[in-house]
Amino acid sequence: MNAKILDAGNVNIKRLYALDTSTYLAGELPVKTKEMLGLISSMVLRCDDCIRYHLGKCHEEGVTTAELFEIFAIANLVGGTIVIPHTRRALEFWDELLTIK
Amino acid sequence: MNAKILDAGNVNIKRLYALDTSTYLAGELPVKTKEMLGLISSMVLRCDDCIRYHLGKCHEEGVTTAELFEIFAIANLVGGTIVIPHTRRALEFWDELLTIK
Amino acid sequence: MNAKILDAGNVNIKRLYALDTSTYLAGELPVKTKEMLGLISSMVLRCDDCIRYHLGKCHEEGVTTAELFEIFAIANLVGGTIVIPHTRRALEFWDELLTIK
Amino acid sequence: MNAKILDAGNVNIKRLYALDTSTYLAGELPVKTKEMLGLISSMVLRCDDCIRYHLGKCHEEGVTTAELFEIFAIANLVGGTIVIPHTRRALEFWDELLTIK
Amino acid sequence: MNAKILDAGNVNIKRLYALDTSTYLAGELPVKTKEMLGLISSMVLRCDDCIRYHLGKCHEEGVTTAELFEIFAIANLVGGTIVIPHTRRALEFWDELLTIK
Amino acid sequence: MNAKILDAGNVNIKRLYALDTSTYLAGELPVKTKEMLGLISSMVLRCDDCIRYHLGKCHEEGVTTAELFEIFAIANLVGGTIVIPHTRRALEFWDELLTIK
Repeated sequence: MNAKILDAGNVNIKRLYALDTSTYLAGELPVKTKEMLGLISSMVLRCDDCIRYHLGKCHEEGVTTAELFEIFAIANLVGGTIVIPHTRRALEFWDELLTIK
Repeated sequence: MNAKILDAGNVNIKRLYALDTSTYLAGELPVKTKEMLGLISSMVLRCDDCIRYHLGKCHEEGVTTAELFEIFAIANLVGGTIVIPHTRRALEFWDELLTIK
Repeated sequence: MNAKILDAGNVNIKRLYALDTSTYLAGELPVKTKEMLGLISSMVLRCDDCIRYHLGKCHEEGVTTAELFEIFAIANLVGGTIVIPHTRRALEFWDELLTIK
Repeated sequence: MNAKILDAGNVNIKRLYALDTSTYLAGELPVKTKEMLGLISSMVLRCDDCIRYHLGKCHEEGVTTAELFEIFAIANLVGGTIVIPHTRRALEFWDELLTIK
Repeated sequence: MNAKILDAGNVNIKRLYALDTSTYLAGELPVKTKEMLGLISSMVLRCDDCIRYHLGKCHEEGVTTAELFEIFAIANLVGGTIVIPHTRRALEFWDELLTIK
Repeated sequence: MNAKILDAGNVNIKRLYALDTSTYLAGELPVKTKEMLGLISSMVLRCDDCIRYHLGKCHEEGVTTAELFEIFAIANLVGGTIVIPHTRRALEFWDELLTIK
């Protein structure tokens, strides 16, 4: 569906999606840190699809389960218990990622 | 379920739902514009059911796919990449609407 | 999954989840009132899982259907029509709770 | 400014504002409970003006400071620490209300 | 301050801010419609600075006060009464814009 | 005012505020990373007071201005242009922090 969105030819959407790639590239901060930042933003804004995406990236970047739980702790603290159901689904997906590997 | 909610006889809920109809009627702004406003509000607030409802109305009012993508572009810009998964689902539903027609 | 989250041993998450229990215990306000407060917070923040949890508790505490609709009315008023789809799902779940009983 | 908004003559806005009054009238739930529901909704959605309005009403309805802190506790738990600055301002305003009386 | 942000030389921020300009240029939809879409998005997301910015643009594009109130009506309906304080401040700023002209 | 909130003696609020301290202590992740996570959460949830708090901590932990702008870039991308006014105020406060030092 992302491909379909890009095929539609709206130049501003294309630019935003390109930016969505370039913003997470290594810079002053390493990719791992940036992906943790993307993950927690997705958690407090409560977007399951976004959480899954950044969990995948965090896994690739070597985030450990213990580190992940510290991110969960901050997300649940700042965002409140309203984040708990998303945390449950995040952990389920993380378990899948660990099993695959 | 909407019928069931109304049947329950809470007068304030009935009034709010009546208002949900009257607010989108043609006035100073045409229905098409109002439905686009309802759509983008639903997008940035990230409510898939609301998005589908207003997509249906936008389709009835003759919003074109090119116009829709400009609404998507503003919604993704103002609301951020957190709106992307909802945009994907919106496009899927829009494709269904075009196919039915 | 909640058990799995707690088993992971992150002490701050454990404390937050313990707080999620203790905060709703009877105090100056009775449990029934606290659960109605938890329910409406979940509705305006639009978290279906949280809504179901507090609906279950409200049911246990003897909240009537007529009282529930007054909570729905305030949630839909303050949170806007964006709350309607969550209200529909809340009513569906409430009907299940009433049927089981 | 509310008067100016109503004077402008938009009938749907008038109806919504009328609904904002009627929804909080005594019904199945007493006014005190409804105002506590309005207060906590305003807190988790983080609107200082709305919080002040409902604090005023809660004060009129005889909500005690100990009860208020239990509402604060639920609001901060469900909504997260992001609600803390609003809680501080709420307490400041509550202190003013107590002093005036 | 926007200038200072851009001067700092972060290329991704520069691109996002450039996109913030290009997305509102005339395309399939006229600038007036796009600015109304930007305005209502800002209202339901409750950002006073963003609301003021788009009110200025709407004024330039010839949006009438009667049209504006229809946008307000949809924003207050979809976003809920939590949007009312922002509507009050929006009307205050609109009055300033009308006076200047 | 935080002191006043704690003095009021609500045990659940005390526990939450204690948690707000313990969650950011060094653990698997260093304090610097945790404070960056707290900062971006505050930015996408758009709480100026929270942003200022975490900016202060980030400054203490040695976050550089170039690193900060990469956090800003992710916050503005994920949260959308609605975050821009908060970014402006964040940069103003950061400049103050740099000047004081």
